[in-house]
Amino acid sequence: MGVVVTLEEERGRSQSAVAQLQALVAADMEDVNEFIRERMLSDVPMIPDLAGHLINSGGKRLRPMLTIASALMCGYEGKDHIKLAATVEFMHTATLLHDDVVDESDLRRGRKTARMLWGNQASVLVGDFLLGRAFKLMVETRSLRALEILSHAAAVIAEGEVMQLAAAKDTGTTEDAYLRVIQAKTAALFAAAAEVGAVIASQGPSETQALESYGRNLGIAFQLVDDALDYGGRAAQLGKNVGDDFREGKITLPVVLAYRRGDQQERLFWKRALQEGEQREGDLEHATELMTRHDALEDTIARARHYGAIAKDAMAIFPDSTYRRALTDLVEFCINRSH
Amino acid sequence: MGVVVTLEEERGRSQSAVAQLQALVAADMEDVNEFIRERMLSDVPMIPDLAGHLINSGGKRLRPMLTIASALMCGYEGKDHIKLAATVEFMHTATLLHDDVVDESDLRRGRKTARMLWGNQASVLVGDFLLGRAFKLMVETRSLRALEILSHAAAVIAEGEVMQLAAAKDTGTTEDAYLRVIQAKTAALFAAAAEVGAVIASQGPSETQALESYGRNLGIAFQLVDDALDYGGRAAQLGKNVGDDFREGKITLPVVLAYRRGDQQERLFWKRALQEGEQREGDLEHATELMTRHDALEDTIARARHYGAIAKDAMAIFPDSTYRRALTDLVEFCINRSH
Repeated sequence: MGVVVTLEEERGRSQSAVAQLQALVAADMEDVNEFIRERMLSDVPMIPDLAGHLINSGGKRLRPMLTIASALMCGYEGKDHIKLAATVEFMHTATLLHDDVVDESDLRRGRKTARMLWGNQASVLVGDFLLGRAFKLMVETRSLRALEILSHAAAVIAEGEVMQLAAAKDTGTTEDAYLRVIQAKTAALFAAAAEVGAVIASQGPSETQALESYGRNLGIAFQLVDDALDYGGRAAQLGKNVGDDFREGKITLPVVLAYRRGDQQERLFWKRALQEGEQREGDLEHATELMTRHDALEDTIARARHYGAIAKDAMAIFPDSTYRRALTDLVEFCINRSH
Repeated sequence: MGVVVTLEEERGRSQSAVAQLQALVAADMEDVNEFIRERMLSDVPMIPDLAGHLINSGGKRLRPMLTIASALMCGYEGKDHIKLAATVEFMHTATLLHDDVVDESDLRRGRKTARMLWGNQASVLVGDFLLGRAFKLMVETRSLRALEILSHAAAVIAEGEVMQLAAAKDTGTTEDAYLRVIQAKTAALFAAAAEVGAVIASQGPSETQALESYGRNLGIAFQLVDDALDYGGRAAQLGKNVGDDFREGKITLPVVLAYRRGDQQERLFWKRALQEGEQREGDLEHATELMTRHDALEDTIARARHYGAIAKDAMAIFPDSTYRRALTDLVEFCINRSH
């Protein structure tokens, strides 16, 4: 009981941490949202309808918040960080639209996915539209270094998704190989989002590299927690179905760990259910049971804490400030989502 | 018989026209191809495999040739036009990959589509990868004006595709509405490809606008001829199946014209076959017959000639040169593909 209270308290603290960050960037995030609303408009009504369905579905806007907070922490006083933040959110939204098509997902953030409402075709094309608008927006900042970083990230994200597709269903995937996938498909955008905040504020290499490292490691931790939640979270809390990854045959870190730590018979189970895609009643429960037996979820979170610690240390070169504290505390928030 | 010979002669002339353009830009196009090969590489082997399948399938590289020829005609002596041309080809390839998924196409340029060989998922993601690499490449030129033009085109192209999706299967589409679709989905990239050639060569507004207009009108003409070929061409010549547009229920200009010029019974036929998608044996033949009865294919080509004429006149402000002549003759080549 005492443990539960402690976890609840910790969760409360980390939630107030994200609330604090949100409060710090609230005014600028209003401008970001205004830009997003304005720049997703089109004479073709299906475009803002479909894009708005996802964009207004209550995502936390974590990635654009990173850009804003980084820029403000670095003392930036201009307006271009707003455009970069909107760019980052558009890139993220485009990725989600395409991901849901590729994964054939039905639910996202507790609502039907765009592809369920408007179809796969429209989701692919509106994703392309948002990517185009994202590039247009960032070109307006005329910051060639920010353009380099974000366009590089765009290619890397897609590369990571293809990597995952190619590696998908291989239960023998190593932890290293899996880390390469999530570094590309998730952490690259977190890294770019934080780095361009420093770049637009004309910071030197040590500050931009620190924020790149912060974003990258935060992104890895975030994805690992997501992977664990997919087996342990509640649908209402997670906004997607528990067991989605399992049903799609996705190899994530909890599977990698449970497979390696399992005996011959357990490995045959994982191969049948994920590699060969032959799933039976009760398989998801059995999978979760095996993960519990081998501490696979717990250790996935432990790995996330490791990357979270690197992210926090990366911030140490910056002088103390409310922004630095909020960004540091954000790491806890991302990890404590898992309780 | 005399007419046939004349058409054959004309076709010969227009083919030598494209050969002449190809010869003029051959050295630079070698460099473009080198860049394309190099920049589609990835540690994930599926990416160059899939991208290469389409990129090496014998496309004419019409769009990058426009960029090279425009830049050279404007006296450009640097190397950045190579990168812009490769950008344009990557953007085009990404669009084709996504189009084939959206249209569920089996064949392109006489070969199985990438989605038939690697699946829809990989085609979507490799398209995204190429789009990311395209942006990376163009950022390297550091030409903010070229970046504006190409990123704007990227959003407009996707907008045109969504427009077509939304308007698809509406046999009541007007010619104007259809023109808006192809201006966006096809002509915008032709326009951008030609315009950035002038931009990189530091031309003034009248030259850049002239090349934009040339590209836009050439693009419209090109698409209209494509629409006609889909009902009239031979599969071997076209590299895709005759009747693809019909089977997919696509409303193109030949349909718009045949529908408007048809009687009540004919309109019911078009509605059943395209709007309701209820196709029967012999429907394609009947459709072609109705188009012939109402001169729909002939007049689609006549419309293409109209836009081709505008494209040619747009070039008149440039002093005479082998480049100008080759670009002007290219218009004939695009239109005479229809014979």
